[in-house]
Amino acid sequence: MTDTNRPLDVVILAAGQGTRMKSSLPKVLHPVAGRPMVAWAVKAAQELGARNVVVVTGHGAGAVEAALAGSGVVFARQEQQLGTGNAFLAGMDALDDHENADVLVLYGDTPLLRTETLRDLLADHRTRGGAFTVLTGVLPDATGYGRIIRDAQGNVERIVEQKDATPEERAVQEFNSGVYLMDARANELAHRITNENASGEYYLTDLLGLYRAEGAEAHAFRLTDPDEVMGANDRTGLAEAENIIRARITQAHMRAGVTIHMPETVYIEDTVVLGRDVTLEPGVILRGDTRVADGAQIGAYSVVTDSVLAEGVVVKPHSVLEGAQVGARSDVGPFARLRPGTVLGEAVHIGNFVETKNARLAQGVKAGHLAYLGDVSIGDETNVGAGTIIANFDGVNKHPSRIGAGVFIGSNSTIVAPRVIGDAAFIAGGSTVHDDVPEGALAVARGKQRNLEGWSHRYWNGLREKVQTKLPWLAGWLDRQG
Amino acid sequence: MTDTNRPLDVVILAAGQGTRMKSSLPKVLHPVAGRPMVAWAVKAAQELGARNVVVVTGHGAGAVEAALAGSGVVFARQEQQLGTGNAFLAGMDALDDHENADVLVLYGDTPLLRTETLRDLLADHRTRGGAFTVLTGVLPDATGYGRIIRDAQGNVERIVEQKDATPEERAVQEFNSGVYLMDARANELAHRITNENASGEYYLTDLLGLYRAEGAEAHAFRLTDPDEVMGANDRTGLAEAENIIRARITQAHMRAGVTIHMPETVYIEDTVVLGRDVTLEPGVILRGDTRVADGAQIGAYSVVTDSVLAEGVVVKPHSVLEGAQVGARSDVGPFARLRPGTVLGEAVHIGNFVETKNARLAQGVKAGHLAYLGDVSIGDETNVGAGTIIANFDGVNKHPSRIGAGVFIGSNSTIVAPRVIGDAAFIAGGSTVHDDVPEGALAVARGKQRNLEGWSHRYWNGLREKVQTKLPWLAGWLDRQG
Amino acid sequence: MTDTNRPLDVVILAAGQGTRMKSSLPKVLHPVAGRPMVAWAVKAAQELGARNVVVVTGHGAGAVEAALAGSGVVFARQEQQLGTGNAFLAGMDALDDHENADVLVLYGDTPLLRTETLRDLLADHRTRGGAFTVLTGVLPDATGYGRIIRDAQGNVERIVEQKDATPEERAVQEFNSGVYLMDARANELAHRITNENASGEYYLTDLLGLYRAEGAEAHAFRLTDPDEVMGANDRTGLAEAENIIRARITQAHMRAGVTIHMPETVYIEDTVVLGRDVTLEPGVILRGDTRVADGAQIGAYSVVTDSVLAEGVVVKPHSVLEGAQVGARSDVGPFARLRPGTVLGEAVHIGNFVETKNARLAQGVKAGHLAYLGDVSIGDETNVGAGTIIANFDGVNKHPSRIGAGVFIGSNSTIVAPRVIGDAAFIAGGSTVHDDVPEGALAVARGKQRNLEGWSHRYWNGLREKVQTKLPWLAGWLDRQG
Repeated sequence: MTDTNRPLDVVILAAGQGTRMKSSLPKVLHPVAGRPMVAWAVKAAQELGARNVVVVTGHGAGAVEAALAGSGVVFARQEQQLGTGNAFLAGMDALDDHENADVLVLYGDTPLLRTETLRDLLADHRTRGGAFTVLTGVLPDATGYGRIIRDAQGNVERIVEQKDATPEERAVQEFNSGVYLMDARANELAHRITNENASGEYYLTDLLGLYRAEGAEAHAFRLTDPDEVMGANDRTGLAEAENIIRARITQAHMRAGVTIHMPETVYIEDTVVLGRDVTLEPGVILRGDTRVADGAQIGAYSVVTDSVLAEGVVVKPHSVLEGAQVGARSDVGPFARLRPGTVLGEAVHIGNFVETKNARLAQGVKAGHLAYLGDVSIGDETNVGAGTIIANFDGVNKHPSRIGAGVFIGSNSTIVAPRVIGDAAFIAGGSTVHDDVPEGALAVARGKQRNLEGWSHRYWNGLREKVQTKLPWLAGWLDRQG
Repeated sequence: MTDTNRPLDVVILAAGQGTRMKSSLPKVLHPVAGRPMVAWAVKAAQELGARNVVVVTGHGAGAVEAALAGSGVVFARQEQQLGTGNAFLAGMDALDDHENADVLVLYGDTPLLRTETLRDLLADHRTRGGAFTVLTGVLPDATGYGRIIRDAQGNVERIVEQKDATPEERAVQEFNSGVYLMDARANELAHRITNENASGEYYLTDLLGLYRAEGAEAHAFRLTDPDEVMGANDRTGLAEAENIIRARITQAHMRAGVTIHMPETVYIEDTVVLGRDVTLEPGVILRGDTRVADGAQIGAYSVVTDSVLAEGVVVKPHSVLEGAQVGARSDVGPFARLRPGTVLGEAVHIGNFVETKNARLAQGVKAGHLAYLGDVSIGDETNVGAGTIIANFDGVNKHPSRIGAGVFIGSNSTIVAPRVIGDAAFIAGGSTVHDDVPEGALAVARGKQRNLEGWSHRYWNGLREKVQTKLPWLAGWLDRQG
Repeated sequence: MTDTNRPLDVVILAAGQGTRMKSSLPKVLHPVAGRPMVAWAVKAAQELGARNVVVVTGHGAGAVEAALAGSGVVFARQEQQLGTGNAFLAGMDALDDHENADVLVLYGDTPLLRTETLRDLLADHRTRGGAFTVLTGVLPDATGYGRIIRDAQGNVERIVEQKDATPEERAVQEFNSGVYLMDARANELAHRITNENASGEYYLTDLLGLYRAEGAEAHAFRLTDPDEVMGANDRTGLAEAENIIRARITQAHMRAGVTIHMPETVYIEDTVVLGRDVTLEPGVILRGDTRVADGAQIGAYSVVTDSVLAEGVVVKPHSVLEGAQVGARSDVGPFARLRPGTVLGEAVHIGNFVETKNARLAQGVKAGHLAYLGDVSIGDETNVGAGTIIANFDGVNKHPSRIGAGVFIGSNSTIVAPRVIGDAAFIAGGSTVHDDVPEGALAVARGKQRNLEGWSHRYWNGLREKVQTKLPWLAGWLDRQG
C-alpha cells in the first residue's frame, strides 16, 4: 500500500472566469505577492516533486498559457464549463500514462496553500493506504462549504453540499477544501462521473462515492490553518491573501536574523534572499531575484528589484534599484536610481539625484549629486562632480564611454559619448567634453568669464515696478545706488 | 402621512469648541480624509437632496463660515453656548419658511455618518408617519450615552441621560445618537424648550417629550453600525474616523475592480475616480479631483493630486503629480514631479528627477533625466537631454518658450526663455541657447575644448599629502610618474 | 519604614546572549524605537532618580560598554553565566556603598517598562515597609512564567517556577516579572544564594525566601499592563516592542494637539518635540533631536533627523532632512535633501531635487529646482537658478563660497569655490564662474551661440534607417525636405 516512490501527477483547475474580479485579466492571473495566483499552485506542485503538472484552462486560456509558458507544465483546455469533474477529466486526458501514479487536484485561485501542508497530506495519504484523501479544514461555522460526513470508523462517508445538508449536517464544522489526493484509479473512476443532478454539471466530489463503491477507504487530512485553502474571489480577497503571504515572509526573515522596522509596512517577495543582521526600514519593497548580504541596511521607502547587495552596503531612504549590483560597503542614496546594468565596486558612493544605467563604477568612485551615468565604465577612485551628465544618446543610438581611474570630473560637466578619458585626467567644471582626454591632461571646454560692472543697476531698474513689490532687498539696493 | 415629496431642511450643529483638540482651529474644521469634518455633514445633507442646509456656528464662526463659503449652505450664529436646543433654534431662525418641511438635525463632528444611512432613516420616518424619529445605535455597553426608553408599543417614550438613569435604564443598550428627523412642527415646538434644569441649558432632546405631549408618536431608527455616529473629539478620534473612511473607500474600489497592494497603506480621497484594472502599489496617495483610466498603474509612494491619467499610463514609484494631465501609455517617474499646467500627450516619457510646470509635451516627447521644463510647449517626438533647463525666470517674470517637433536637445543645455526653437533643430550638448534656433539648424553655444597635457601631475602634487591618505590609486599614479 | 529620601541603586542585568536573535550584535544592543534595548532600562533608571546605575554585562560586554559609554552608568562584568543571582552579585560588587539604599533589579531586554510604572512601584514599596517587592503581572494563562504564591495575608510566600508547579499553582494567573525592589539587605542576603539545585545555577528569585527567613514581609506590585515586562527575544519580539512604543508616542502627540494622518504608518522617536497644530502626513519618520514648532506641516514619506523646524514651515512629501534648521514659513521639497549644517532663514524656498549641505540661506532665498548648494552662505532674496552647482570640492578639500544678497544666479551655472559673489550681482545662465563677481556686476562665462542652418538634415539622413523606425515625425520631416 504505502509506496512513497509512486509518481505524483498534479491537476490544477484554472478555468474559472472570476466575474467578481471585474477584470479583463483571467482570475487565476491576478497577481498575489509577485506571482499570478495560478503560479503559486504550480510552484507548490513542482516543489512537491510532481512528475506532471497539468493546468486546466478555460476562460482566458490563451493568456493563462502564455503566462505559464516555460514553466514546464502541461496545458489542457476545458472547452465548456461543465463542472469540476469535467475539468479534471480534461486534465487527465492531457497525460499519456495514469498507471500507478497518485493524482493531486489543486486550484488556480488558492495561493495560500503551502507546499509543507501538501507534503504532510501526501505522507498521510500514503501511510494510510492512499486510495482517496480529501484535504479538510475546521471552522466554527462552515456555512457555504461542503461538509465532511464521517462513518463510525472515522473514514469519510460522504461530502454533503450546503444546500443539501440537514440541520445536523450543517452543524458539522469540518469542510471540504476541494483538494483531493487519489491513487491511479482516479482517471478511470472520473469517467464514471455523471451530470445527472439538479444543475446538470459533472462534480469532482462524486469521485468519493465511486472510490467507496470500489471498496476503497476515503480519508480526510485536516489543515491546521483553514485559511490555507481560502480562495481569492475579488480584489479584497487578493489583498488579504497577499497580506498573509507577506506576513509569512517577513516573519520568516525576522526569525532568521533580519531586523525589520514596522514589518506591517514592508513587502518582500519570496524569491528574495536576505543575510543575517540585514536591517530593513519602514516601507521597504524587495522584489524578484534580489539578494542582500549580511549586515546591509536598506532605508525607508526604497524599492529594490532583481539586485545584489554585498556585505555592509547602506541604501539610504527613497532609493530605487533595479538589476543592479552593489559592492561591499558602498552607500547609495537617498534619492538614488540604479538601473539595469549598474555594477558598483566596493566602497562606491552614490548620492542624491544620481541615476546610473549600464554603468560599471570601480572601487571608491564617488558620484554624490545630481548626475546621469549611462553606458559608461569608470575606474578606481574617480570623482564625478555634481551635475555631471554622460550624453550617451545621439537621438537614435546609445554610445559607450570609458573613464579612467583617478579622474576628477568637475561639476556640471557634459561628456559627449563615445568618449575616452584617460587615467588621472582632470575636467574643469562646466566643460562640455567632445574630444577624448589623454591621461593626466586637464580638459577645459567652457567660455571665459567676463564681468560687466554696473549692469545689474540697469537691469533691475528696467524691472523696477516688480522689484518694488517682490524683492524688497533689491529695491532698497537700487534706491541706495541712486 | 407619508409624503415623500415633502421638502427637507437640515440643521447642522457646528458651534462647539472642541477643547480636547488642543488646537487653534475650530473643532469642526479639523480635516478627515480630505474634508473638514463639518463638510462631511454638509455633503451628506446635500446628497440627501436637502432644500436648505443651515450650519449653526459658534466658536470660530468666522473660520467655519469661510471654510464653507460657496458651498450653498446658510449660516446661523449661536451667539451664546446655551445648549443644543438653543443652537437648533438659531438654525431654524435662519430659515424663512418652516411649513410642511421635515427637519433633520446633524452634527459637525460626526464625519462617519453615511448618506445611505440617512436615506434609510428618511424613508423609515416617512413610512411610519414622520412626526419624530431619532437615530439610535446599539452597543453592548452604552455607558455615557443617553438611553432610549421604549413604551409597550415599541415607540420611544423617553431618552434618559446617563447621570439621570436608574440601574435598569443604564442596562439599556440602545443609545441616542442625537440625530433627529422631525416634521414641520419642530420649529414651533423648539420654542417651548426651557432651560429649567440643573445645568440651565436648553436641551434639544426635550423635543421628544413635546412631540409626545402633542400626541405624536416618536420612533427610533437603528443604525446597523453604531460607529457611524462616533464623534471625533480629539486627534486620535480624527485618525480613527479617517481610517474608517479610508478603508470604506479602498474597499469600494477593490470591489469595483481596482487592484490595491497593501490597502492599509493606501490613501484615496472620495473625490477620486478609478477605472477598471487600475493597479495601486503600497503607500499611494490619491487626492482631490484625480481621475485614473482603465489599466493605469501607480507606483509605490506616489502622491497624485487633481490629475488626470489616461489609459495604460504607468506612474513609477516616488512620483508627485499635481494638476497634471498624462496621455495614454505615457510613463512617468520614478522621482518625477509634474506640477500644475502639465499636459502630456500620448506615449510621453518622463524619467527621474524631472520637473514639469505649465508645460505641454506632445506625443512621444522624451525627457528622461534631471530636467526642468517650465512654461514651455514641446512638439512631437522631441528628445530633451539629461540636465536640460528651461530658464523661464528673469528674476521677477516668467517667460514662455516654444520648442518644435523632432528637436534634439543635447544634455546639460540651458534654454533662456523666451525662446523659439524650430522643428528638427539640434542643440549641441552643454549649450546655453539665448537666441532662437531656426528649423533644421544646429545650435552650438559652448566653449571649445582645450586639453593641457601633464597638468594633473602638477595639480595633484600640490595636494600630495591629502592624496596620499585619501586617494591611494592617485598616490600610486603620482609615484609612477616620478 | 517609609523613607522616600533613601537613595536608589539600580542593577540592570544585560549579560545574556540572545541566541534567538541570530545576530552578531549582543541581544541588549538590538535597537528598539531608536535606542538599544538596554538604553531603555538605563533611561528609566535615570528618570527614576537612581543614585547608581549598574549594568551587568557578559556576552558582548565590550560592545555593550561601548554603546553605553558616556551615559553615566557603572559597568560590572559577569565573567561566567552562573545565573541571575550571580549576575546580581556582580552588579552589587561594583558599588562601594550599599547602606541604606533601595536596590531595583531591571533587565536589558524589556524596553516596554515605563518609568511611571517604576515610580508607582517605588512609592508602593516604600509605603508598605519597603523590604522586598516583586513586580508582577496577571495573564489569563501565565504558562511559562514563575507564579506568585501568596499567603493568607496576601503577602508573597513563594515564587514557583513553571516546571516545579503543581496543577493548582499552574492555574495561578499572577506571574513574576523578575523585577525586584529591595532594601539595603539585598547585598548581604544575595551572598547567601546557593547553586544547590538541579541546574546548578544561582537564582535571584531565592532572595524572596531569604528575606522572609529574616522575618521581612514580601509584597507584590501588580502591573496594569503585563505587556510592559514583555521581553524581546527574537526579531519579531523587537518589532512588536517597537510597535508598542511607537503607538504610545504617536498617541501621546495626538492627545497633545498634533494631527497625524494614518498614525499606524508614522514613526516618531521619543526624543522628538512637536508643537501644537503640527500636521504629519502618512509615512513620516521623525528621529533624534528634532523639534517642530506650532503649525508646521511635514509631508508624506519625509524623513527628518536632528532638525529644527520653525513655525509654519511646510515640508513637502519625500524630503530628507538631517541636522538642518528651517526658518519660519519656509517651504521645502518635495524631493529636497537638507544635510547637516543647513540653516535656512525665514520664508526660504527649497524645491525639488535640491541638496544643501553646510549652507546658510538668508531670508527669502529661492532655490527651486535641481541644485547643489554646499559650503556656502547666501544673502537675502537671492535667486538660485535651476541646475546651479556650487563646485565646492577640488578632489581632496572643500572650499567655502559667499554669495551676496539680491543676487540672480542664472540656470545651469557652476560656481567654482572658493568664490565671492557681490550683492545684486547677476550671473548669466549656463556660466561657469571661476572668478569673483563684484557687487552689481553681470558675469557671463559661457560660449557664444552659432546656428548652423540645414545641419539637421544631414545629421538625420545619416541615421535614416533608425529614424524611419523610431521617430516617425522626423522621418516625415526628412521626406518633406526632399
